[in-house]
Amino acid sequence: MIQTKGYAAQSAETDLAPWDFERREVGPHDVLIEIAYCGVCHSDLHQIKNDWFPGVFPMVPGHEIVGKISQIGDHVKKFKTGDLGGVGVMVDSCRTCENCQNGQEQLCSVSPVQTYNGLDKDGNPTYGGYSNKIVVHEDFVHHISKKLSLAGVAPLLCAGITTYSPLRNWKVGKGDKLAVVGLGGLGHMGVKFGVALGAEVTILSTSESKRADAEKLGAHHFVVMSNPEEVAAVKSSFNFILDTVSAKHDLNLYLSLLKTNGVYICVGAPAEPYELPAFALLAGNKVVAGSGAGGLPQTQEMLDFCAEHNIVADIELIDIKDITTSFDRMVKGDVKYRFVIDMATL
Amino acid sequence: MIQTKGYAAQSAETDLAPWDFERREVGPHDVLIEIAYCGVCHSDLHQIKNDWFPGVFPMVPGHEIVGKISQIGDHVKKFKTGDLGGVGVMVDSCRTCENCQNGQEQLCSVSPVQTYNGLDKDGNPTYGGYSNKIVVHEDFVHHISKKLSLAGVAPLLCAGITTYSPLRNWKVGKGDKLAVVGLGGLGHMGVKFGVALGAEVTILSTSESKRADAEKLGAHHFVVMSNPEEVAAVKSSFNFILDTVSAKHDLNLYLSLLKTNGVYICVGAPAEPYELPAFALLAGNKVVAGSGAGGLPQTQEMLDFCAEHNIVADIELIDIKDITTSFDRMVKGDVKYRFVIDMATL
Repeated sequence: MIQTKGYAAQSAETDLAPWDFERREVGPHDVLIEIAYCGVCHSDLHQIKNDWFPGVFPMVPGHEIVGKISQIGDHVKKFKTGDLGGVGVMVDSCRTCENCQNGQEQLCSVSPVQTYNGLDKDGNPTYGGYSNKIVVHEDFVHHISKKLSLAGVAPLLCAGITTYSPLRNWKVGKGDKLAVVGLGGLGHMGVKFGVALGAEVTILSTSESKRADAEKLGAHHFVVMSNPEEVAAVKSSFNFILDTVSAKHDLNLYLSLLKTNGVYICVGAPAEPYELPAFALLAGNKVVAGSGAGGLPQTQEMLDFCAEHNIVADIELIDIKDITTSFDRMVKGDVKYRFVIDMATL
Repeated sequence: MIQTKGYAAQSAETDLAPWDFERREVGPHDVLIEIAYCGVCHSDLHQIKNDWFPGVFPMVPGHEIVGKISQIGDHVKKFKTGDLGGVGVMVDSCRTCENCQNGQEQLCSVSPVQTYNGLDKDGNPTYGGYSNKIVVHEDFVHHISKKLSLAGVAPLLCAGITTYSPLRNWKVGKGDKLAVVGLGGLGHMGVKFGVALGAEVTILSTSESKRADAEKLGAHHFVVMSNPEEVAAVKSSFNFILDTVSAKHDLNLYLSLLKTNGVYICVGAPAEPYELPAFALLAGNKVVAGSGAGGLPQTQEMLDFCAEHNIVADIELIDIKDITTSFDRMVKGDVKYRFVIDMATL
């Protein structure tokens, strides 16, 4: 077994704290990654607090993992020692269902093996990237270009693919007007991808204070939703709206900003249901679409796209000892735009 | 002016009753239709009762109109006297906005001229098909095949196009599994179109009593939603669900019956908003799409498709004097599947 250091929550009532544990030996198709950086996703906090469902404890969160491969199994073909590798929200899947066969392993109908807070195929709990090492089947590890800042790549493995995937699936590109709602870890990636794909990008914000940031991110326009004149000027104007907000909010107003046949893409996950008036959809043949993460082929495509377009997340690098205060700041939206743990501090 | 007989509501508090009124003379581009039949749409009742918004009274409802053309304007090219003509939910539009240019006149951004309860371009109220004559610009009149039962064609002008349009826009066809929710005027047309387009069609019903009817309509399968075993057997199985229900109902259960990337099409218009849990969309990249009526080119395409496939609505022909009791029966769902007024009884 491989001795591993990490940070774990021992229960939903305790903060994260240092915890030593063991990972499986490197199997024939496995690689061992020395984790360099791990992004901090809002879902990490939701899961250690049992916000969505009862978790598997002790829980080591983290599913935005990058590092150097230090050991490979006998049959590994995709990587060699010294390569960079990235791991996202899953580390295995059934591999045989229709979704897996179609490269949508994140929607595996048996159930994908979540990178943490799940059970591996051997029945053991999975532990995530708030740790110094991880052993993963090579199929679920992605190649990472050495051209990019490695710490900025980490959030691509969840926030990146979650925003890239629907923009690609809905073929957002040149000639399209795209609005992004919510300028956090997901939203700022949505803006970068929208711009790189050739769309005309508008940020819809509740706060005037983000106007300057929007420009820095490359957005073409900025609308404060509390200003009726600015809102009126963009009525019925967008082909797509990418909504990254996880708090409850009024879809009706946003739907009125879509053009005929426009598509409203939800990647945030508010705990309470959306209230969706039928007329807001019927009057304009509008579409509300959900999207969660992405499959293996599209995740690699996204990482290659980022290398080609020199895209990484805007991050704030933190010491793992500051994780709890970083969670507090994340909840308040006080981060531009993603915390990433420097695993050298572990 | 053209003397016209009809049935009108004088206010939202009164029942429909005989009313004589005038229509404009036949202009250079107009045709005069001697109305033979008019379908009874649930929205007729909603509008005379001001359920959605304050109406224009006296109100002559009816937007599923068929009859023989008895007079044409000097510049009319599309029709000759003696042709059959059909009129749906609109009788004009701005003709210049992007939607009109794209053949989506029903979504005219200036506002289409509704067949009744609207204002025509000359500022006069529009009066619908519960009457013996109507004068309409030829562009908004559709050709009707003499092969089909004319009374059964009337409901195609609203219930028909409303279900045909989304099935075509979403390219429902051979190899697709389509479920239809709600077996009324819209739903029964959805079943017929789904079958004719080559899909495998299942009716999802709240009532066991409709099983035999489903078979008569050509549906391949029937599921009673109150039977947990039948519901479990169709979990994650449909590519498309066409929801025609106008009463409040739980989308969450129905969304679970969609496959990955499945599309839930709403053509009913419940007064209360849908409650839409984000996870029901995210877990499966699912789509909820609205659709209302259809544009002029697609309406003619639908009528031609019906002639080719010998499709009409299943109707119950009524005397116009029985309209109020027919409304009562319609509200209870006691009609298979659309009332059509025989205008010879006027």
